[in-house]
Amino acid sequence: MNPEIFEELRQIVGSDNVLTEKEDLIPYGFDGTAAIKEPAACVVFASSSEQISQVLKLARRGKTPVVTRGSGTGLSGGSVPVKEGIVLCLVKMEEILEIDAANLTMLCEAGVITKAIDDAAAPLGLFYPPDPGSMKISTIGGNVANNSGGLRGLKYGVTRDYVMGIEVVLADGSICWLGSKCVKDVAGYSMKDLFIGSEGTLGIITKVLLKLLPRPKAKKTLLATYDSMENAARTVSKIIENQIIPCTLEFLDRRTCQCVEDFAKVGLPTEAEAVVLMETDGYPAVVEEEAEKMAAIARENGALNVEVARDESHALKLASARRSAFAALARIRPTTILEDVTVPRSKLPDIVKFIEQMAAEHQLEIATFGHFGDGNVHPTFLTNERDEAEMVKVEAAMEAIFEHTIKLGGTITGEHGVGLAKKRFLPEQFDEGSMELLRQVKKALDPEGLLNPGKIFDPA
Amino acid sequence: MNPEIFEELRQIVGSDNVLTEKEDLIPYGFDGTAAIKEPAACVVFASSSEQISQVLKLARRGKTPVVTRGSGTGLSGGSVPVKEGIVLCLVKMEEILEIDAANLTMLCEAGVITKAIDDAAAPLGLFYPPDPGSMKISTIGGNVANNSGGLRGLKYGVTRDYVMGIEVVLADGSICWLGSKCVKDVAGYSMKDLFIGSEGTLGIITKVLLKLLPRPKAKKTLLATYDSMENAARTVSKIIENQIIPCTLEFLDRRTCQCVEDFAKVGLPTEAEAVVLMETDGYPAVVEEEAEKMAAIARENGALNVEVARDESHALKLASARRSAFAALARIRPTTILEDVTVPRSKLPDIVKFIEQMAAEHQLEIATFGHFGDGNVHPTFLTNERDEAEMVKVEAAMEAIFEHTIKLGGTITGEHGVGLAKKRFLPEQFDEGSMELLRQVKKALDPEGLLNPGKIFDPA
Repeated sequence: MNPEIFEELRQIVGSDNVLTEKEDLIPYGFDGTAAIKEPAACVVFASSSEQISQVLKLARRGKTPVVTRGSGTGLSGGSVPVKEGIVLCLVKMEEILEIDAANLTMLCEAGVITKAIDDAAAPLGLFYPPDPGSMKISTIGGNVANNSGGLRGLKYGVTRDYVMGIEVVLADGSICWLGSKCVKDVAGYSMKDLFIGSEGTLGIITKVLLKLLPRPKAKKTLLATYDSMENAARTVSKIIENQIIPCTLEFLDRRTCQCVEDFAKVGLPTEAEAVVLMETDGYPAVVEEEAEKMAAIARENGALNVEVARDESHALKLASARRSAFAALARIRPTTILEDVTVPRSKLPDIVKFIEQMAAEHQLEIATFGHFGDGNVHPTFLTNERDEAEMVKVEAAMEAIFEHTIKLGGTITGEHGVGLAKKRFLPEQFDEGSMELLRQVKKALDPEGLLNPGKIFDPA
Repeated sequence: MNPEIFEELRQIVGSDNVLTEKEDLIPYGFDGTAAIKEPAACVVFASSSEQISQVLKLARRGKTPVVTRGSGTGLSGGSVPVKEGIVLCLVKMEEILEIDAANLTMLCEAGVITKAIDDAAAPLGLFYPPDPGSMKISTIGGNVANNSGGLRGLKYGVTRDYVMGIEVVLADGSICWLGSKCVKDVAGYSMKDLFIGSEGTLGIITKVLLKLLPRPKAKKTLLATYDSMENAARTVSKIIENQIIPCTLEFLDRRTCQCVEDFAKVGLPTEAEAVVLMETDGYPAVVEEEAEKMAAIARENGALNVEVARDESHALKLASARRSAFAALARIRPTTILEDVTVPRSKLPDIVKFIEQMAAEHQLEIATFGHFGDGNVHPTFLTNERDEAEMVKVEAAMEAIFEHTIKLGGTITGEHGVGLAKKRFLPEQFDEGSMELLRQVKKALDPEGLLNPGKIFDPA
């Protein structure tokens, strides 16, 4: 990279906020995705939308690519640097600008940590539901750019459902405000929805206006164990048929249970084929009634055991079985590849069985867990990226899983995004017309192709 | 229009499905919007996406504009014909293609009547919540193209929240499928969200995959009367502060009450300054508890009277006070202009007061009703479009109301769309960067500008 650009960047953001030394750059050469790396050429910390606007104008003059980044917890390589590009890091834009309790909204800068949002809402009796696994370290800007999910998706939806407005800096450096505090607003196209989930390829999200909810007054947690995934799936279907929409309906397969038990000692039966974590929240009386009903439905549908949390600490222990799944699995082998396919809810047992078949066929270790209620499963490959022969098998199994997912009417990514990791599979899911639409929109909004280039798809 | 094109259209859709005789065309020269008309040159009834694709290819060859239309209930002139253009009517595409109870989805053609969707869902214990005022005659395609609201918005959201996928025919005639049955799907940009609410200017929506919910088991209806709008507003705020999210929180002002009472004789107190209709639905026990709480909150906040529905027919009678508001107002004067501004919820008393001031200042009759919980108010001008002097005053008052709405952080349209009626006010609400974004997207997706041209905004 031309060192002159470093000097110009220092003038915009201050010299403390530009990193160019090799050892400083190392942590910015990857995100949370296994086996995808690219050294950063320089990292810029912005502290305002105006600075970002200037950085983009500078980048445009020199046709320099810009990759935006929050905490770097992404799981599809979406914030991995691009050769000869600027890494623009927003973690210093971490102010909560307003909580409007009368209108149930919060305005914050893009670098605010996700969990800090709910923590700030709680004392006012308010609630920010999206809870991606990375919530303690991920930033809200990253969540919005990736439309992050979480464990409460079935009842509460995903990040998109809580974004009322965004400020975005466009490729030409102009700053736009999209959306409003109005709960209904149909003026013009819903441009904010285009930026949500666009993974930093269309513009840089700098501020976010979030919708909050009244905080649920009660919550009840249950854990059921099964000797077959089919029984677990039938329980989930019957719960929904009984018109109960729990806030959490998560599952772990046998291999995941074993690893979690090994790691966290929460008392999981390691011989179970499936464990389902259920949580219902809301009105105390309803929560009690729903929890009892769910326990009964689980028993009627072959649960070996149903444990109902006695109190808050017991509930936390049961929930930790699921919350610690990824950490537990990540200890087993040198490389952990966390996949993220989603199918229509009724197809979940089918995809889980198929994943097991693929593991057996390719002699791989795949542990699966995920969001049962959303049909969103995380087949997790426990492998070693230095073992080339094994990686070939991993690739083959993954490809087969994606193909089967698409055949079931599913998607190659439920919450992690496409980024670099799944880019080559997107044209298998999308028809040619839809791929062309993506290209047209990208070309219209970022005609020089400088924003996070090469992510999601390649230009025509 | 060149008569050769009529012949080509007849070849595509059959000669019964092309109208060109003046008297046949009259009903297609307007929609539900007062004072906006333009004679149609020809009307084409399509019965498949393939036919629509062919019509668009034909239109492109001759650079003929195409205005898409369902039942023509729109309230912003969005489906009013364009000079020398084809009116493409989708009411014959009225098949419900699939109800998938396991995944809580319904797939239907764009011409299905909105109410027919909920009617088809009900026997399966399922529920399609969006209920625009026009639901008995409007089509789902029109609802999606306009992102229609309704009376249940506060709790259940709007049409967009129930669209999981769409089939769309693009300006070049290509047919795309966008979305899936997956409740979480972050593959590529959320293109479906761009088409939802785009008012027929970006593509033609031909099929819709809708999300359904379990049908609520119980509902309770209340009607409270007030001697001031402030007391009514405080009741609404307190209900939400008490963490109750009713499915309906609607209000009528005094003038609306008088007209409704005159028209429907439901026993409304015509001297009340505000009447608030509240409904809560869901679990029977919760519904009872919430209804009692809401009644108590209303009384504590100055309600003159709170009537709780004894049974279903009583509930329908109370609800009809609000449901019949527009019909009742439409009888008073020759022209009824139904406006649709929305403000952040806490600003509702402010905008209602401002509307009253404008009525007094310009000596106009404006009755106001709407969705209190959403901050979405419908100031309704009772006037006569042939009285030019009065129409000048209507214009002035409306402009002032829009300006004040924008100053309060509101939007010029909460649910009716921009269409032709509000096009000139959009640049007051949007910053220049946002207007430019709209133009860029339009240019990318409809480069020749043939889809519903001149609606929402003009190209640069």
